Amino acid sequence: MPMKDFIFHNPARLVFGRGKTRDVGELTSAHLGEKVLLVLGRQSAKKNGLSALITNNLAHHGVVAEELWGVAPNPSIQSVREGALTVREKGLTGVLAVGGGSVIDCAKAIAAAAWHDGDPWELFEKKIKPPNVLPIGCVLTLAATGSEANGNSVISNPATEQKLAWYHPDAYPAFSILDPELTFTLPPEQTAYGAVDILSHVYEQFFHDLQGTDIQDGMAITLMRSVIENAPLALARTDDYNARASLMWASTLALNGLIGAGAVGDWTCHMLEHELSAKHGLAHGAGLAVIFPSWMRHVAARKEKRFRLFLERVWDVSTQGVTTEQLGPLAYDTVVQFYRHRLSIGVSMKEYGVDNPRVEDMVNSVLTYRTEANLGGLNRDELKKIFQDVM
Amino acid sequence: MPMKDFIFHNPARLVFGRGKTRDVGELTSAHLGEKVLLVLGRQSAKKNGLSALITNNLAHHGVVAEELWGVAPNPSIQSVREGALTVREKGLTGVLAVGGGSVIDCAKAIAAAAWHDGDPWELFEKKIKPPNVLPIGCVLTLAATGSEANGNSVISNPATEQKLAWYHPDAYPAFSILDPELTFTLPPEQTAYGAVDILSHVYEQFFHDLQGTDIQDGMAITLMRSVIENAPLALARTDDYNARASLMWASTLALNGLIGAGAVGDWTCHMLEHELSAKHGLAHGAGLAVIFPSWMRHVAARKEKRFRLFLERVWDVSTQGVTTEQLGPLAYDTVVQFYRHRLSIGVSMKEYGVDNPRVEDMVNSVLTYRTEANLGGLNRDELKKIFQDVM
Repeated sequence: MPMKDFIFHNPARLVFGRGKTRDVGELTSAHLGEKVLLVLGRQSAKKNGLSALITNNLAHHGVVAEELWGVAPNPSIQSVREGALTVREKGLTGVLAVGGGSVIDCAKAIAAAAWHDGDPWELFEKKIKPPNVLPIGCVLTLAATGSEANGNSVISNPATEQKLAWYHPDAYPAFSILDPELTFTLPPEQTAYGAVDILSHVYEQFFHDLQGTDIQDGMAITLMRSVIENAPLALARTDDYNARASLMWASTLALNGLIGAGAVGDWTCHMLEHELSAKHGLAHGAGLAVIFPSWMRHVAARKEKRFRLFLERVWDVSTQGVTTEQLGPLAYDTVVQFYRHRLSIGVSMKEYGVDNPRVEDMVNSVLTYRTEANLGGLNRDELKKIFQDVM
Repeated sequence: MPMKDFIFHNPARLVFGRGKTRDVGELTSAHLGEKVLLVLGRQSAKKNGLSALITNNLAHHGVVAEELWGVAPNPSIQSVREGALTVREKGLTGVLAVGGGSVIDCAKAIAAAAWHDGDPWELFEKKIKPPNVLPIGCVLTLAATGSEANGNSVISNPATEQKLAWYHPDAYPAFSILDPELTFTLPPEQTAYGAVDILSHVYEQFFHDLQGTDIQDGMAITLMRSVIENAPLALARTDDYNARASLMWASTLALNGLIGAGAVGDWTCHMLEHELSAKHGLAHGAGLAVIFPSWMRHVAARKEKRFRLFLERVWDVSTQGVTTEQLGPLAYDTVVQFYRHRLSIGVSMKEYGVDNPRVEDMVNSVLTYRTEANLGGLNRDELKKIFQDVM
């Protein structure tokens, strides 16, 4: 099969560089209007002065901001409900996210839910399609999800133990400020989980079996190599601008539609990870660090050519003399060693305090959203095995 | 110097794949309106039935099209004047280009000139800035210029012997149909010049001296390698879909702003080439095939690190034991041999029928538009030498 047909259309305006956070007022006024909902995470933006800097800058440009604090990792539908209510009650004209992917995903859902009279969760259940989406802006504080440059949003519902994804062509941010300096103060595990998230987005789009995708492959390999090189540098010296800038640009390019254009995305591991987050509360990056190596060990033999390319070109690991059966374990070891020793994060459920993962529940849940065919042809037993092998 | 700050914003909708030409009516109706100017080249679109297919498809979707035929390579301001007049007289709502970069550049200029009462050439002289640009659509028939996904236009003025570039943020095509099958019938020299054009766009953005640009470098290397691999395949078997698709996607990605984001473009050779086209009528790709290797020979020693990377990673040519002084000749030979033997095109002015190039005139002309500092620090004597060495 040759390169797939595709439509690539990404209207997000990316404003990248040192100190670009100071453009927020001007950009907000131009693209979101004069009355916005400012969506923030838990406390770090308050502690480090970022939220004050932003509200001052907004005010200086005549923008009035209502604030919604407390959006958590694996953002909850409850935050969306709260934000949408404020937007409707106050007649706000746009939604400005200051944070990482969780905050941005929440902002997108609010921007859509503002047009919907019923419960916002119906968006994620695909029961309704919003007629419109309020304009969204971002100030990115974490290089990870790529949400700053796509129309995707993933929201969790604690009541139903679900974590569901949603896409809307009007949910691309009108602008995203990508200021690598904002990531200097991240705790190391957030930098590390962010790196795993970026890598995992590329993995999902790399292990297809198409021919003639040398451009997509070359770009994907470039992004993976960049993360593998720069994440340890950012962990070693937290204010390494070049490393932070490369990680941030990689996060955007890994999921802005570019490397997937013409290729085929798998996204099985993201489906599996959503279960780890929903059922056991793992951070998204942690869940991916656990599940992806296990998936690789199971599928490498049936994707031999791609895994040899992966090991050779991404990790500089020779596969000369490596048999088909040895490819899975070799890929597993290669990735796990990098996560464990260079990123200093856990790669098993135990390391995240989960001694008895609810494997059966998770497999059942995954299979309610996707058929086996849509999980790369993995059957129930194989899914179980992938979950079990990461205990 | 680290990666540069940048703004990346490219709203072009790229519709890529086999037979996507049949989407033209629907896309035109949605994005350009019901009354458009159809801009075409000389004759090939008539001979191969493409123009009939398109006008039928437009009519089927209720779109009325006025036709402007005859846009030539190095498109003339005269075509722009003619098209703008028709748009204004008939009250057209958009401009649809069917062709390669020349036709698209002409369509963009028409779309802007439609808003200007005076002579359209004033746009290119930067005397006026159009308040608006009519929406533009493209059906691309040649992988080369990247004009299908940027806001640039280059137009020639035979009366003044000038060839000038212009950019407008509203001149990005609203949509571009990238149907690789349309390039199956190209004459071999057009495929080859297109490949040179793509490569040259990457060269212009690759030989900077920044640090921390591993992502930009990796993507640039990927595009160059893809062209080097696929252009000979497309010449050997003209309907090789994978090769044609890779060339077309490379042409778009080479100049949609992506690989230049965070890097520094030089564009000296494009300025020099414009003189070869304006004064001696060379096709753009032919002019680039002549001038770029000569430039490389002159500047490689002062950009040693980048030229070693270029030879090693793009051309698989080892530079072990190669001295600084030998880098220029080695780069020259490497590129020229590929152009001559794999693409079967000329690399000197003589081969294009020019025995006495007007070197002094060309240097004078270049230096009226750019200072030496804006030509990579090359002084008048060096510019002369670069022009002379390609006789």
